[in-house]
Amino acid sequence: MLLSLSLSRRLLPHRHCALQCRNIKSENVARSAALDSVLSAFRSICGEDGVSLGEAVREQHGKDESVHRCRPPDVVLFPRCVEEVSALAKVCNNHHLPIIPFGTGTGLEGGVGAVKGGVCFSLRNMDQVLDLHQEDFDVTVEPGVTRKALNSYLRDTGLWFPVDPGADASVCGMAATSASGTNAVRYGTMRENTLNLEVVLADGTIIHTAGKGRRPRYTISVCTLKYAVLPSGGLNAIAFLFYLLSIFRKTSAGYNLTNLFVGSEGTLGIITKTTLRLYGIPEAVVSAVCSFPSVQAAVDSTVQVLQSGVPIARIEFLDDVMIDACNRFSSLSYPVTPTLFLEFHGSERSLEEQVNTTEDITQSNGGSDFQWARDAETRNRLWKARHDAWYAALALRPGCKAYATDVCVPLSRLPQIIVETKEDLIENRLTGPIAGHVGDGNFHCLMVVDPNDPEELHRVHLFTERLARRALTMDGTCTGEHGVGLGKRVLLCEEMGPMAIQVMQGLKDALDPKGLMNPEKILQPRVL
Amino acid sequence: MLLSLSLSRRLLPHRHCALQCRNIKSENVARSAALDSVLSAFRSICGEDGVSLGEAVREQHGKDESVHRCRPPDVVLFPRCVEEVSALAKVCNNHHLPIIPFGTGTGLEGGVGAVKGGVCFSLRNMDQVLDLHQEDFDVTVEPGVTRKALNSYLRDTGLWFPVDPGADASVCGMAATSASGTNAVRYGTMRENTLNLEVVLADGTIIHTAGKGRRPRYTISVCTLKYAVLPSGGLNAIAFLFYLLSIFRKTSAGYNLTNLFVGSEGTLGIITKTTLRLYGIPEAVVSAVCSFPSVQAAVDSTVQVLQSGVPIARIEFLDDVMIDACNRFSSLSYPVTPTLFLEFHGSERSLEEQVNTTEDITQSNGGSDFQWARDAETRNRLWKARHDAWYAALALRPGCKAYATDVCVPLSRLPQIIVETKEDLIENRLTGPIAGHVGDGNFHCLMVVDPNDPEELHRVHLFTERLARRALTMDGTCTGEHGVGLGKRVLLCEEMGPMAIQVMQGLKDALDPKGLMNPEKILQPRVL
Repeated sequence: MLLSLSLSRRLLPHRHCALQCRNIKSENVARSAALDSVLSAFRSICGEDGVSLGEAVREQHGKDESVHRCRPPDVVLFPRCVEEVSALAKVCNNHHLPIIPFGTGTGLEGGVGAVKGGVCFSLRNMDQVLDLHQEDFDVTVEPGVTRKALNSYLRDTGLWFPVDPGADASVCGMAATSASGTNAVRYGTMRENTLNLEVVLADGTIIHTAGKGRRPRYTISVCTLKYAVLPSGGLNAIAFLFYLLSIFRKTSAGYNLTNLFVGSEGTLGIITKTTLRLYGIPEAVVSAVCSFPSVQAAVDSTVQVLQSGVPIARIEFLDDVMIDACNRFSSLSYPVTPTLFLEFHGSERSLEEQVNTTEDITQSNGGSDFQWARDAETRNRLWKARHDAWYAALALRPGCKAYATDVCVPLSRLPQIIVETKEDLIENRLTGPIAGHVGDGNFHCLMVVDPNDPEELHRVHLFTERLARRALTMDGTCTGEHGVGLGKRVLLCEEMGPMAIQVMQGLKDALDPKGLMNPEKILQPRVL
Repeated sequence: MLLSLSLSRRLLPHRHCALQCRNIKSENVARSAALDSVLSAFRSICGEDGVSLGEAVREQHGKDESVHRCRPPDVVLFPRCVEEVSALAKVCNNHHLPIIPFGTGTGLEGGVGAVKGGVCFSLRNMDQVLDLHQEDFDVTVEPGVTRKALNSYLRDTGLWFPVDPGADASVCGMAATSASGTNAVRYGTMRENTLNLEVVLADGTIIHTAGKGRRPRYTISVCTLKYAVLPSGGLNAIAFLFYLLSIFRKTSAGYNLTNLFVGSEGTLGIITKTTLRLYGIPEAVVSAVCSFPSVQAAVDSTVQVLQSGVPIARIEFLDDVMIDACNRFSSLSYPVTPTLFLEFHGSERSLEEQVNTTEDITQSNGGSDFQWARDAETRNRLWKARHDAWYAALALRPGCKAYATDVCVPLSRLPQIIVETKEDLIENRLTGPIAGHVGDGNFHCLMVVDPNDPEELHRVHLFTERLARRALTMDGTCTGEHGVGLGKRVLLCEEMGPMAIQVMQGLKDALDPKGLMNPEKILQPRVL
């Protein structure tokens, strides 16, 4: 009943004003009629089961995995196809109701909170994998398809989709937030791997950002290692792994809409299909771990590994605090020092060379305890610390919540920013083990914080702001992969400058003139 | 005087209406005063020398290298810095005068014609190379810097900028048109190599698309070939060339403005600085040429070369007609068959492997006369046919003009579209030798046409439309690198669909509400 009142109030703001002199009874009648009319419009489009007003469902759709408080929507819709999404958006548009797209809720900057109430579009029922073109290495997915579900679908094709932000996020949600993760150093982020999007705008218009059904071409180089017999009788590897030699999109037809919607965090439209670039599953995988005497030594090794041309698939950094947490959590015995977790993808033959080169480099930088493994079981054991980092961090302070903050700087500045950040954490009595996609200059502090301690929450808030500003002074960005959401809007202004923000606002107004799409995310509300 | 009248008419359209009942004399006085005021505002900003009303100068700035007719602007300005560009734009904005940015005029789709008159901003006096960061492999250039001037500036640094559309275009102009060219198969297009832009909007606002001074990071892999001694005594190449292993930009901070302006062809703003990604100059270069019995054999070889992992730098296709023309023009004796021109960049050691692999592949596809050369002189001789293709095509019909049209399709469709296009050319009695960046699925017909024969011009026009539509039916794009300009606006609508075009128009309106920026390019004028 409270909910109905809340929704009906939103439904009738103008009529409410007009009616303020009339009696309460007729007002309530009008509200109730409008509410009934909207809900019945929703139900007629996506069925009884497609409309939920239940408190638990709304609560579940009002928060992500960050510390931003739950802001439940007034109603949650579960459309089954793009036509339903479009029709529902039209209803919302006609009634000035905010629209918040929802994938899996695994975001980290408060991107799904219904800060102005409104209607959550949960896209989980649109979960089909469409139009797989094996020969062309591309596939189209609906927004209910998660990255694990996609890779499970692809299992027998020899192909996979490598972008991996950690969580089993919806692939369309990953496009919406420009996600990346551990494999980005080799395979790129969602920006490079999104070929086309189907998007429903706030008024229900359906567009295709690269033209309907088009899959802008990439030149694909999938390579196997070849050997030539040398005059000496030795074998010479004449073609290394070049999965990524050329993935350049070539079209100069009009404005690049695809890359405008990638990373727009639901503020410009609802992504209802994403066409993705796929990759050949590597013939073999090797994992490795190595400890270092200092952050500098670990970063130097990373730079040199990349410079040496080893096509490394993942190169992850954990600091001493994180390693200590992992040792405790998983009963491991890694030296409590900065540590790199590495993964190599390639042909059986090439991997040995990659690993040897990497080991040489790490040794020359004082790295020790270099361990590597090829079979899945040992690989998983080696990488256990990295995989469990989140839970290990949480276990440092039982009853607390973890919150990952994210910045990105030029690789050359990484040692300095990590050292300064660790000092900052100690000085401010904060628990924040560090894990980084070090090949990209991108790292996270996994802040472990007592959600019931407002003073500590405030200290964490100030810390994350200092961290982001530290990255900005080093020519970096306030967010490498988590996005802006609610949490980094002020920092975005500092990064971009007021004029560029005004341009972003202009683009938002052009595509969403009523300001209904995921209100108050990325851009701050205007002071009127 | 005619010019002054024309400009003054544009200056006073509204006042003209308001004054229509008054006498002619007072109207002329007002016009003349407004004209004087605008021109003197221009002169006070960029000096006497910075404002040209001369007919020759205006004619020169009213056309590019296409067959689109010259549409001279009313006045040409030569600003010297971004502040002048901004101040001049404000004057234009206040007087509703169209603004047409001009780099070198080497475009191919009529992008610089002043179709509604107005003010040409020639940016040739802003020709400084700024902020070279050798360690970070990036540089910022003003719009008067051409790609050859930039590479000449970089000569002693060990770095170069590889995007090469053929013409010695302005690098900022290349960003504006999303140019690519022969090296794209390895180094990408302007989309991948533009890190940040300074842009002056129609109202004079200056923005930086990635934040002022920011140079979003790429992970750079510059690699040299290393050899390990095998137990057998042979050498094993353990690291091939990986210049391009990872050039992924990592930021998820707000809307991607950089990629919105790249390819916007001056319709959204004036690019006054471009920050570019640079590359290490390859240790050595090898060029090669090979003849094929069929288009299919040449394309199959291309695909296999790419798939084999050879990091080929250029792979250019000339058809039999083009080769015949080159033989005649340059007194060469290549077999008159489909031919590939190849270029390999790498370390001394790796190049031999690359060339051997490529030769094996071409032979297995029936390729013959495989020639290769390492020293500059022989290389130039080998590639002479490709370098002179434009002039060789022109020489087929003395007195005619050449016009290059451009489409791009999936590589697998390339043989079919080339065969069909050659049949079309013969059927319609057109001279159009074919040259293609075959590694990208991108090719050009170099139409040689009598500019004084309207019937032939019409046939060429119909042919280019058929060619583009053929590409569209094959999932391709109507332009891989020349852009839309005036010539491909209808085709862009067909490629993108009316809704996406409406979105593009909305973005244009948001950034340029008065429609002053390079009017009628990319998007057709609205029917009111």
